[in-house]
Order: sequence, then C-alpha cells, then structure tokens
Amino acid sequence: MPEAMTVHDEDGFDQPARDAVYRAMFTRRDVRSHFLPAALDDAVLARLLLAAHHAPSVGFMQPWNFIVIRDAERREKVRDLFLAARDLELPAIEAERQALYRQLKLEGIRESALNICVTCNRERSKHSPLGRWHNPEMDLYSTVCAVQNFWLAARAEGVGVGWVSIIEPQALKSLLSIPEHVTPIAYLCVGRVTELAPRPDLETHGWGQRLPLSELIMSETFSGPGETLLKSAIAELKTGGAPPG
Amino acid sequence: MPEAMTVHDEDGFDQPARDAVYRAMFTRRDVRSHFLPAALDDAVLARLLLAAHHAPSVGFMQPWNFIVIRDAERREKVRDLFLAARDLELPAIEAERQALYRQLKLEGIRESALNICVTCNRERSKHSPLGRWHNPEMDLYSTVCAVQNFWLAARAEGVGVGWVSIIEPQALKSLLSIPEHVTPIAYLCVGRVTELAPRPDLETHGWGQRLPLSELIMSETFSGPGETLLKSAIAELKTGGAPPG
Repeated sequence: MPEAMTVHDEDGFDQPARDAVYRAMFTRRDVRSHFLPAALDDAVLARLLLAAHHAPSVGFMQPWNFIVIRDAERREKVRDLFLAARDLELPAIEAERQALYRQLKLEGIRESALNICVTCNRERSKHSPLGRWHNPEMDLYSTVCAVQNFWLAARAEGVGVGWVSIIEPQALKSLLSIPEHVTPIAYLCVGRVTELAPRPDLETHGWGQRLPLSELIMSETFSGPGETLLKSAIAELKTGGAPPG
Repeated sequence: MPEAMTVHDEDGFDQPARDAVYRAMFTRRDVRSHFLPAALDDAVLARLLLAAHHAPSVGFMQPWNFIVIRDAERREKVRDLFLAARDLELPAIEAERQALYRQLKLEGIRESALNICVTCNRERSKHSPLGRWHNPEMDLYSTVCAVQNFWLAARAEGVGVGWVSIIEPQALKSLLSIPEHVTPIAYLCVGRVTELAPRPDLETHGWGQRLPLSELIMSETFSGPGETLLKSAIAELKTGGAPPG
C-alpha cells in the first residue's frame, strides 16, 4: 500500500481486492445471448441499484431514476421498437457488413429476468446547476456512470447485463410514459446467465478488434506523441498477462 | 455462487471479491483537496488506462483517447480556464448559495501529479455506426464508461481522481489542439492523496444530500410506483450497514 494512503489505512485495497476490481472490468460483457429465465433476487437487484446510486454526479445532483420492467407484454412492445429501429439502422451500415449485422444478436429483452430503463432528470438541480453551466450534458454523463457501476456490480454478482441502444428514444419515452424533461440513457436487459463470454461478442464475430491501447494515448496535446516510458509500461502490462478480452 | 455461473466457475467472485468491487464504488471520491505532489508510477497509470480501455463501447467502437498533461505551464492555463468559467457559472447559482459556491474547492489541476483529458472521436466508426443511428450520443456515453472504469481502478490503487466540469469546452479544445470531430468528455486531476474523504465534499459542505434510493425506483413506467418487495430489500440494505457516503 502506498505511503500516501496511510491516513486511511483501513480503506486500503490489498492485492486480491485490487485484482477483483480489475477482474470485474476485464470480464464484464454486454450480454445478449445467454440469459436464463430464472428470476433475479430482489436482494441482489437492490445491491446493484445501490451501486448505481453511488456513482459520481455533477454537483451531487443524482439525476438518475430506474424503471424496473418485468411485464412480458410491455417487453414485447420494447422488442418491437428494437426490431423497427434495427431495420432503420441497417442501411447506415457498410454494404459488405450488412449480412453480418443481420446475424448478430443484439438484445435479450424478452429472455432476461427483467429490464431496467435508467433515466436522467434534466431538471433535478435546475436552480443551482453547479458544474453544468458550460457543460449541460454533465448530468447525462453522471447517469452513464451509474449505469457502469450497475454493470460492474452485476458482473461481480454473476449477473448479466446488456445495453440496448438500437431503439428510437421518443418511442421508448412514449411507451414508458417518460416525461419531456427526463432523458432515457440506457435500456438494460438484466438476469442470470448460462455463461459470460470470454471476449466481446462483436470481437468474436469479427465486427471489430480491440485497439492497441498505446496508440490511444497522447502527451500534452491531442497531436502530442505518447510518452515513451508510459508506453513501455503499457507494453509490459500486455506481456505480463493482461486480459485477452 | 449462483448455480447459473457454474459454467464459468473459475470466473466466479467470492464474497471478499464482491465486497472489493462494492467498496471501490462506495468509497470512490471526487478529489479536489488532498492531492500530494508525488509523481504517479507509470506502471500504475498504465493499469488505470488499461481499465479505462476495457469499458463497454457501442459497436465495439472504443472511441476514446487519453491526453496525459504534466506540463506546469499548460496546467496553469487550464486553471485559468476554470477560474474564468467559474466566474461565468456563479450567476446561474441561486443567490443564497453563491457564498457557499465560492468557498468550495472544485479542482486540483495544479496540485495533482498529472491531468488527463479523456476525449471521444466521433468519427472512429463512421462507416458502420452500429447502435448509433438512433442514439448518436452513444459514443459519448461509451467514453464516460471509460472514465468511470479509470476512476474505480484508481480508487482500488489508492489514487485520487477529480473531474473538472467547470470549463468552457471550446477553449479547452483550443488549448489542447483537439480537432473539431473530437469531443472532450472529462478533464481529470489524478494523483496520490493524503486522504480520501469519508463522504462527498458537496455533502460535507451542505451543498446536497444523498437522495433516498427507494424514491428513485419506478415500476413498469415512469409514473409506476416502485415495487414493495424491492423497496423492502433496499430498506434492509440500509439497516444492514450500507455505506454512509
């Protein structure tokens, strides 16, 4: 443990604890295919929501809400929205990739134990918008942090989560009676799974590859070449058994 | 471990591992005040960036870049941008809260070991924007997930992170030579700290309070009252020693 942390010694993470945090990140998957119909315990769901609720938020605004959707008929309607949206998205995909796009399973709306729509109330701190004068989208970003907390906590609980973004937001708002000043951020499929894939589905199916991290790092400005020492440290990570997926 | 996870038994999280993931979330802080001047090891920074790089991204787009900023003169200029932005934001704050706003320390740009600007390249998958036809902002959200991974990994490493959102984005783009098609998402102050506060600064100073989680949960639609059983599970979490901060 670094000396700097001795003030709050009891909060320090030992190596197994650090490893657990990284493992949740490296093995988290966007789940579409392996959901089980089993119900999810309320106690588990409560912990996932508590994790989400402890995300950072601009001006301590906590702009999020969580709509828990279980009803089969409503979920069928959400899936119809997905199917319609996919048909509209298809022509935007390169011609030579459209066949692959069609084959990809991109949602588990009906098969998962439940769905959650995470929303952002744009007006929750409208009288004192600390940190949002220049960047009004910060509340949306805070809500995304809540989604990521939820997702990582789910991984640690052995629960699969898939984020469905192929959906027309106004249609979703209408279906879930979401008011004008509230923005849906993420539509999540959540539940127990038969497995979590070792790699992202889109990598397995050849849609894309993990980019080399060291090429994504700049120094001082956007055109500044990355730092040699930092790149060496990254290269050592990779040879040192960094996760494949 | 739930039965559903037996297929990938070796990936299961035992109780201490799960606890570590939750602890990172519950004790993560937006650090502004307690930075140490000590340098941050490249090996540690490399791990934090690898964590960020394993965030989920729409269409496996990985739209992020990381600009590492160490130069004192450049950071002084970024701080000048913050000071100017704060002056412009102040009038938007409720009159009776302006004195408190002025007293809050809202950045550690110069005192931290280094700064990182996390950006989103809007054009990285422009030929096949899977998942972005209806929701083009999804690449911004993916980049936010990378920020949250970075932040949680930093917590597990005993490294403080503060997100500065009081800054004019065009001025920041200009200062860091960020091209038009790239959006700065987060300007982070990163470094070793003397302590991590037990609660969010804005809570300690009376700017805001943690909202009751159960009031943020709806059932089926945005106007649907939350589920009784789920609310009970949340209430039990709270009496069961949920984190204060």
